[in-house]
Formats: sequence, C-alpha cells, structure tokens
Amino acid sequence: MTYRATLDFLLNDWLDVPALSARNRFSDHSSETFASVFDTCERIAREKFAPFNRLSDTEEPHFDGERVILPPAAHDAARAYVESGMLAAAQDYEVGGMQLPCVIEMAANSFFSKASIGLGGGAMLTSGSANLLMAHGTGLQQAVFAKNEFAGRFFGTMCLSEPQAGSSLSDIVTRATPDGDDALGPRFRLRGNKMWISNGEHELAENIVHLVLAKIPGPDGQLVPGTRGISLFIVPKRLVDDTGALTGERNDVALAGLNHKLGYRGMPNTLLNFGEGKYPVRGGAGAIGYLVGRPGDGLKCMFHMMNEARISVGLGAAMLGYAGYEASLDYARQRPQGRPVAVGGKDASRPQVPIIQHADVRRMLLAQKSYCEGALALTLYCARLVDELHTGGTAEAAEAGLLLDMLTPIAKSWPSEWCLEANSLAIQVLGGYGYTRDYPVEQYWRDNRLNMIHEGTHGIQGLDLLGRKVTMDGGRGLALLASRVAATVARADAVAPLAGHANALAATMAHLERATQAAWSTGVPDEALANATPYLQAFGHTVLAWIWLDVALQAHATTPSDTTRGALQAARYFFHYELPKVPAWLRVVETRDDTCRTMQEGWF
Amino acid sequence: MTYRATLDFLLNDWLDVPALSARNRFSDHSSETFASVFDTCERIAREKFAPFNRLSDTEEPHFDGERVILPPAAHDAARAYVESGMLAAAQDYEVGGMQLPCVIEMAANSFFSKASIGLGGGAMLTSGSANLLMAHGTGLQQAVFAKNEFAGRFFGTMCLSEPQAGSSLSDIVTRATPDGDDALGPRFRLRGNKMWISNGEHELAENIVHLVLAKIPGPDGQLVPGTRGISLFIVPKRLVDDTGALTGERNDVALAGLNHKLGYRGMPNTLLNFGEGKYPVRGGAGAIGYLVGRPGDGLKCMFHMMNEARISVGLGAAMLGYAGYEASLDYARQRPQGRPVAVGGKDASRPQVPIIQHADVRRMLLAQKSYCEGALALTLYCARLVDELHTGGTAEAAEAGLLLDMLTPIAKSWPSEWCLEANSLAIQVLGGYGYTRDYPVEQYWRDNRLNMIHEGTHGIQGLDLLGRKVTMDGGRGLALLASRVAATVARADAVAPLAGHANALAATMAHLERATQAAWSTGVPDEALANATPYLQAFGHTVLAWIWLDVALQAHATTPSDTTRGALQAARYFFHYELPKVPAWLRVVETRDDTCRTMQEGWF
Repeated sequence: MTYRATLDFLLNDWLDVPALSARNRFSDHSSETFASVFDTCERIAREKFAPFNRLSDTEEPHFDGERVILPPAAHDAARAYVESGMLAAAQDYEVGGMQLPCVIEMAANSFFSKASIGLGGGAMLTSGSANLLMAHGTGLQQAVFAKNEFAGRFFGTMCLSEPQAGSSLSDIVTRATPDGDDALGPRFRLRGNKMWISNGEHELAENIVHLVLAKIPGPDGQLVPGTRGISLFIVPKRLVDDTGALTGERNDVALAGLNHKLGYRGMPNTLLNFGEGKYPVRGGAGAIGYLVGRPGDGLKCMFHMMNEARISVGLGAAMLGYAGYEASLDYARQRPQGRPVAVGGKDASRPQVPIIQHADVRRMLLAQKSYCEGALALTLYCARLVDELHTGGTAEAAEAGLLLDMLTPIAKSWPSEWCLEANSLAIQVLGGYGYTRDYPVEQYWRDNRLNMIHEGTHGIQGLDLLGRKVTMDGGRGLALLASRVAATVARADAVAPLAGHANALAATMAHLERATQAAWSTGVPDEALANATPYLQAFGHTVLAWIWLDVALQAHATTPSDTTRGALQAARYFFHYELPKVPAWLRVVETRDDTCRTMQEGWF
Repeated sequence: MTYRATLDFLLNDWLDVPALSARNRFSDHSSETFASVFDTCERIAREKFAPFNRLSDTEEPHFDGERVILPPAAHDAARAYVESGMLAAAQDYEVGGMQLPCVIEMAANSFFSKASIGLGGGAMLTSGSANLLMAHGTGLQQAVFAKNEFAGRFFGTMCLSEPQAGSSLSDIVTRATPDGDDALGPRFRLRGNKMWISNGEHELAENIVHLVLAKIPGPDGQLVPGTRGISLFIVPKRLVDDTGALTGERNDVALAGLNHKLGYRGMPNTLLNFGEGKYPVRGGAGAIGYLVGRPGDGLKCMFHMMNEARISVGLGAAMLGYAGYEASLDYARQRPQGRPVAVGGKDASRPQVPIIQHADVRRMLLAQKSYCEGALALTLYCARLVDELHTGGTAEAAEAGLLLDMLTPIAKSWPSEWCLEANSLAIQVLGGYGYTRDYPVEQYWRDNRLNMIHEGTHGIQGLDLLGRKVTMDGGRGLALLASRVAATVARADAVAPLAGHANALAATMAHLERATQAAWSTGVPDEALANATPYLQAFGHTVLAWIWLDVALQAHATTPSDTTRGALQAARYFFHYELPKVPAWLRVVETRDDTCRTMQEGWF
C-alpha cells in the first residue's frame, strides 16, 4: 500500500473529513480541494525535500561567526514550502489563508515530515508561532508579525527553555524590564539566555520573530517564583516599523552557539543570548520586545498552542516511523536471503527467497505498520478534534476540548516511543546494511530520538496525564474517554471477527480505570506519580487499541481492498502482540510500587 | 557504586571465581593475581581508551587509496593492549599466555569495552581468531600464525559474510581451488568477496591473518549447496615463510571499500576482494590460502568459537550500557531541575533539587542498572561455564556445555536489546543535552545498535533457540536449565524477602516450558518458529530473572553494603517491572499466533 492510500482511507472513510465542508468556514472545500492540496504537498516533498534528506544530515548547519550557513537545498525547500501557501493553510482568507481544516493542514504537512523532518520543521514552527499571535496578539502585532510569517517573509521561533530550566519553566530567569510604550505593544528590554531554540538563527527569511518567555521583575527588582510570573514577548531579530518594514536596526539578540545534535540536523538548534549588548540597539544593551497578552499570562498564551504543537510532534514521529517502514518494506521485497523452513529442514539447493517471505521479517514489518499507522490515525483523530473545538457546536466543542486534554499526552508520547521502535525494526530488517549510512533508516532512527525529549519529555507527559488530566474535574475527562471507548467496543462486539478484540479492549480499559483509582487511593502524589511513566505507556497502548479497533470497524465496513485487509491485519497484530503488554505496566501503578521511590542514591 | 566493586562482588562472592585456583591450570593464580590483571586493564582503559572514544567516532577510518588510516590514538590503544599481554590472556604459558580463566579474561576485557568499544574490539577479534587456530590448526599454523597473533605482530579477522550471504552462510560463493601442498597446509587460491569484515584492513600490525570461509568446487566445478561444502582457510594479507617472517609478497586481498557505519566507528569495517588480481602473487591472480582442518569442516571450526564470540558480544553490549549508566548517573547527581511534588503541589520558591531525587529519574537509572548489571552477571556466568567446559570434571564439563548451548543465544541477544534500551534511557535522563554530541550517551546508543545485528541477528538467535536448542536431544538442555532455575527458586523460597520473587520465577518458568511444548505441539516448524523472536524475548527475561534471583541470594547472604543493597533493589526492580512482561510474549508463542505468517505481501 502507498502512504497516500492509507491517508485517504483514514481521512475520507474513517474520519469522514469531507463532511466538514458542510460547515461555513470550510464551505469552499471538498474532497477534491483537499486532494489537490495533498497532490501539491506530495510533489514538493518528493522534489524538494526527500532528495536532500541525507544532505541535511551530513551538511549540518554551521556558524561562520556572523551567520548560520545552511545548504542551498534548505533554502530551496523553505522557498517551495512558502510558495505552496501552507504557512497559512488553516488561516482566514483575509490574512491570506486557505481556511483548511486543521486535520487537512496536518495531513498535508505529513508529506514534508516523511520526506525530511529537519528541512520541514522550521516552516511548521513559523505557522505555530504566527497562530499564537493570531490568538493572543493585538491587531497591529498580527498585521506586522503574524501576517508576514504566514507570507514567509519572516520565520518564527518559540523561546521557552533556558540552560538551567528545561522541563522546569518556573525557573526561567530571563528578565524583561519596561522600556516605554510602543504602537507594537508595551515595550520591554529582555536579558537572558534561551536554550534549545529551533531555527533560532538562519538566513532563510528576511527576519526572525522570536516569541520569548520572560519574567517582569516586581517593584523590589525580584522575579516572581513559579510560572505565574512568566510573560510572553515578541522579540524580532531585526526591528520593524508599524508597517512591518525593517528599520535597518539589528536587535540585541545574538547566537551563542549551535547545538550539535544526534539527528534532526536539517534544522539549526541554537543557544541565543538576549540583551547581552553584542548588538546594542537604540542606545544600549537589551533586546527590545513587545508584550503579548497580559503580564503573567505568558505560559497560558504559549500553552494555548501546546495541544497542536504536541500533536504535530507525534505526527512527525509517526512520519519518521513511516519513512523507515517504507524503506524496509522496499528492501524486504528486493533482498533475497535464506529459504523457508519445512519439516525436515531447508533445501539449500533451492533458490533464496525475498526476505519478506520470512515470518520474522513480516513480524517486523507488521509491527512497524501497526505502530506507524496507529500513530497516524491517533494524531489525525486529535487534529479532527481540534477542528471540532474550533468549528463544532458548543457541546461538541467542549467535549472535543476535554478529549484533547486527555489524548494530547498520548499523541505526543506514544508515537515518539513506538515509532522510534519502528525505526529500530527497520534497521533490523536491513541487517548490516541498515547499520550503514548508505541506507536512510539509521538517520530516521537518530532523527526520531528527539521526539521523546522536546515539547515536554516522556516523564513530563506522564506527570501531566496521571497528575493532572485524569484527576481534573473529578475525572470527567477519563470518564468521557471511557465512554468513547465503550461505544467503539459495543459496535465491534456485534462484528464477529472483531468481537475478540472488543472484549480484550473492554477488559483492558476497565483495568486502566481501576489502576487509576488505585494509584490515587492514598491521595499521596509521591506514591501515585512514582509510576507515571509506566502509566503513560499503559494508557497509550490502551488508546491505540481503541483507535485500531475503530479503524478496523471502518475497514470491515468498507469494500475490501489491500488497504482494508492490511488495516485489519495490523489491528489484529496490535491486539495479539501489543495490547497484552498493558498489565505489566499497570501492575506497578496499581500497587503504587515503591521500588524506585525507595532506591537510595548511594546504592546506584 | 563503582563498576569495579560490582565486578568484584559478582566474581568473588557470587561466582566464587578465586576457587578456580585449586585447579592445576590456574594454580599460579589467586584473587590477588586476578585483581592485578584488572588493575592493569582498568588503568590502560582509562588512559589509552576512554579519552579517545569520541575521537574514534569523529575521526572515522578512511582509505587513502592504498592504506586505511586510523588516528594515532587507535595505534596507541592497540599497542598498549598488546603490551598488556591480554591477547594471550587465557593461553598456555608455553605460547606466551597467562593461563587465566576465561571468566577473568572476559572481565578484564570489559574495561576496554566500557572505555571504547571500537578501539578495543580489534584486539579481542585477534585473540578469537588465534584461539580458533589453537583448536583446529596444525602445529606449524599455530606457530606461524596464532603465536604471532598472541604476540600482537599480526592481527586477525573472521571472514564469513558475503554481500549476498549474511545470515545465510550456506549461500557463500567464495571459491577455493587447489594450488598444491605447502608446509603451512594444503594451499588453495581463493576468489570472492567478503562483506562486513571488521578490521579487514589497517596498519595496526605487521600483517593481517584472515580466516576465510570458502567452498572447494567439486570435480564438476560446481559448489556444493548448503553449509556442508564450506571449508576454512588462513589467508594472510602478506605472505609469510615457515618461520613467520614476511616474504615481502603481498597476497591478492584488496580492500574494495569501507562501510560507513552508524556507530562502532573506531574499528574499520570492510568489503574485501579476494583473488581479483589487484595484487597478483606468485604468478597470478587468486588469494593464497591454507586449509584449516578438513575440507567441509569450515563452519564447524568457525562455530567452535561461536559461544565465546557471542558471549563477548553480549558483554560488549552490557559494557556500552554500563558506560551510559555511569554517565547518566553522574549527570543526575549534578543537575538541578524541578522540585518534589507534595500534597498541594510544588513550592516554586524553594531551590531546585538534583534530578536524581525524582522518582522517574531513579526509575530510569534503576532500569539501566537492572539491565546492565543483569547482562554483566549473565555473561560472566556463561564465561564461568566456558571454564567449566574446559577445565571441569567430565560430568561438570558436559553439563556446562549443554547449559552454554541454551544460554548463548540469550547471552548474545538479551544484552544487545536491553542494554540498548538502557542507552536510550541514559539519553532520556540527560534530556536535550543527551541528544547532543557534547555528551557521550548518544554515541553509546549508536555503538550499541550494532549488537543486535552482528554475530547472528536477533532473528537468527531466536531460530537457534526455539528451532534447535530447546528441542535437541529430547529437550535435555531445557530440562537442565529448568533444574538450575528450580534449585535457585528453592533456595530463595526459604529467604523471606526473596520468596515472592521465587514464586514469580517458578510460575514464569513453568509457563515458558508449557509454551515451548505448545509451540511445537503440531510439529510444524512454520507454526512454531513464526514467533521465535517473542520466544527469545520471553526466554531472555526469564533467564535474567533467574540470574537476578541468584545474585540477590548472594547479596542477601553477604555483609550488607551499598553494593549488596543496590543489587537487591535492582533485583526487585527486575521482578516488579520486567518479569511481568513475559506473558505477553508467550501468548503468541503458545497460541502459535499466525498473524505474521498469514500477512500477505500486498497488504503492507
């Protein structure tokens, strides 16, 4: 099967996305316009991204002392992406957008991620940054910054982490001191260091719009501890006037260094110094920034976009997995090696067979398929919920929001973990060749290793899920998810070939709910949360089993084809080989196992 | 705890290795001589290997058209290793050896693997190649080739795979045609290509001794299909006379190319052309080689050393895991980030704590400890069995051989899979920093990925175990292993804190035996072997639980220290978090699940 056929099945048959065109916002659209967006993206990805994926790894960004140098292919890819209009895909017509549903935008972007995650990443970051300004910026901030980002004149970044504050944003120490008023917003001078900033410096666009979290000192000059003191600022690399024209002044933002990564090298990753005086501006040191939203609302503004950012990370991980799946499938079909084992052994005088004929190779391919297509289905489902949140009826939007709260940690973490495993299996299918840089699979594996780290580590996702999401509002989110699972189970129970899966899922879901209660039964956070990561893994596998069962129902109801048969077999793989892993994870959750908590430092 | 303390506990307390000095062969030895070998190796590894591990990765071997160039550090490391005498550690005094037990030799080598697996690997390969000649070569072959390898004048290789024949050695097509008799053995001319040859070309020694598998054509000029037609040859890069002196003639062995690998870059990996006429010798093309053992016995000779080679791979994987464990433990102790969660949330005004105080970080460290120390204990146990095989009484030797047959696939595969997972956890502990090349953990992860591939892939190990080892001789090997497990269970059952573990292990072992029978109950290889890899994983976790329980018994019986407390906690981790994973793997084995077998190629 081709990726496009799978995508079409999931979007058209399973999620019924074309029905969205009945909504006012999408009324110009139809499956034809969606398909034509995909055609364009698929073509650009094939021509401008995929051929340069290895090059983006070997010709890593470097700093010549003044500028960050990227290979010409990176410029070509960025230009092609800008010209496609995808930067504003989901935006209103009036800001130059296409008013596409979020699920179509994400699906369209998946072609780029699959072709070259590093080359594609910067543009999507720009959309995200501009979207944030459309939600929280003033009209002028939107006109000057966001619109120019949508047009590709400016590229964007998100500056959250600092060298001493990665997972713990409450500890950021970048200071923003008032510097007067400005048409672009209350003006501040920022001073501090920001770490892990993707696309923090480059020459791909006229300007770079940094969205920076910083703290405004109190009257005593002290920073407020915790996240309440955090505000959000627009800090352009080059200053602009109220029309968005460059004033010719360079802002006081300096590249302190590039991070040299294991993978994902197409996109520069930087340490930026704000306001250290390397580029004094308008009379002194301090990076000029404009407040977005209200003081203290920085994290809220930033997290407004977090659902979509995290779903995108998950989809990117799924696409890296899928790219490895395609490469290893192709190899397995071509490569002769070994013979089938029959009763009495093998007959060495017979010709070798393509390795796809070996059950263990099929197992490795089927595992990849179940991980990557499952992850794809989950992230598309979440993207569809984002559309419901934005354009659904009041009740539907509220439900979608609540479900997104529950599913986002899974959409981010599950593909990151299991599509990385898929990439490892792809290497294994190729054997020694997979271990060489002559084949692409090792790069996918290296690239994908980032996804369990950025945008909230696995550990953070687990704490978010077990520490916040399943307990919030009296457990209303978990109850809603359970009711959705139960609905799928009820439908599948009536379909003979899927009834066994339905029973297995129902039992696992019940176990998950019991374990959730048991984890919190003593009310002691330490006891519950010590096993938040195994909980995240158990929850993830349960959610994926639900997604697979729902997809299988659709496959069963659709005219049989290779796509539907493949989906049914992948679902079966997931239920037979994967779902049974859940009890081992839940065991430590429900017993509030204290092995890790009681381990003493000296014993390591 | 330091690695050395752990090693000493396992060797001295658990395996009682010093008792070996009661045997004639080891009578000059004692715990003091063993300790002094370790001191030497630890020092050389610290001074000549560890500091150059990153350099061995960044200054990858390259070919200048004539020679393979390695950085000076590789030459220094090789020289220091040669001077340590470790090349002949286990050999007889009369060939310049130290008559050390195998378990001490392997433990001593572990310091090098931990410091720099790529720099260390070539020397160990040389020992292995020379050991093979000591077992199967003629007296003159031993004197001319093996002795010079032990002395470090010559380095060795093993040439098995070909570009079209990796896992399937029966399909090799390198031909050896008779070329007359020679004091060094029946002389042949070899023609063919050998792939994945580690250390196949370099300037680290005066000469390179290739041990090459090839087929001698029958009278009809045809090669015999299958492995029965395979013979073993010594093919020196430079020809030597009967005294081992170089004759000045270059043999017809040419480097066709270097493989550019994902990791493990300290050791060149090559494609070699034998006999293509690039270096015509003694009047023509064809690489001159000398037969070792009898025609057709090539694979038998090669596999004579396979147990030790595969145990070494497992120990190397364990050491890469351990190196990552040490690095991430060190980081977790230093790095402040976040605060404990208390009832009512966190107090952001309090100082951050070192991340080792977070339960999830302790979980990631404890998982690494349980994987790496478990893998270390297993491989040392196997090495101790090798000593029993070679120096034990008749009955003990036979039992040791049978146990080794059962455990070798696990000693090779389990560390390769789980110590790779340990390396991934080490990256995760370091977060973004772990993803950069400024820290060593990403390299360990890349290096370790090779171990599931070389010396027999995971899939091959699974087929070996389920297809051959557990069924051979009416299941005598599995019965023996089960009796050893039962003995440990019985002892642990009597020790209150370990009785729960004992019960869990007994139940899992019984399940494993039932599943083995169920897999073969129809007698159809296809049905049993379709799930050979999940079987390997289940078997591996069961064996490791047994090893951990046995180690825990020793820790419980020893004067309490950080080492024994750490071992008990790591054992507990393994029983609570890992052993419960087994039923999911066994489920598909015992049901002879046909999901993978019945997957059609068109459905992918």
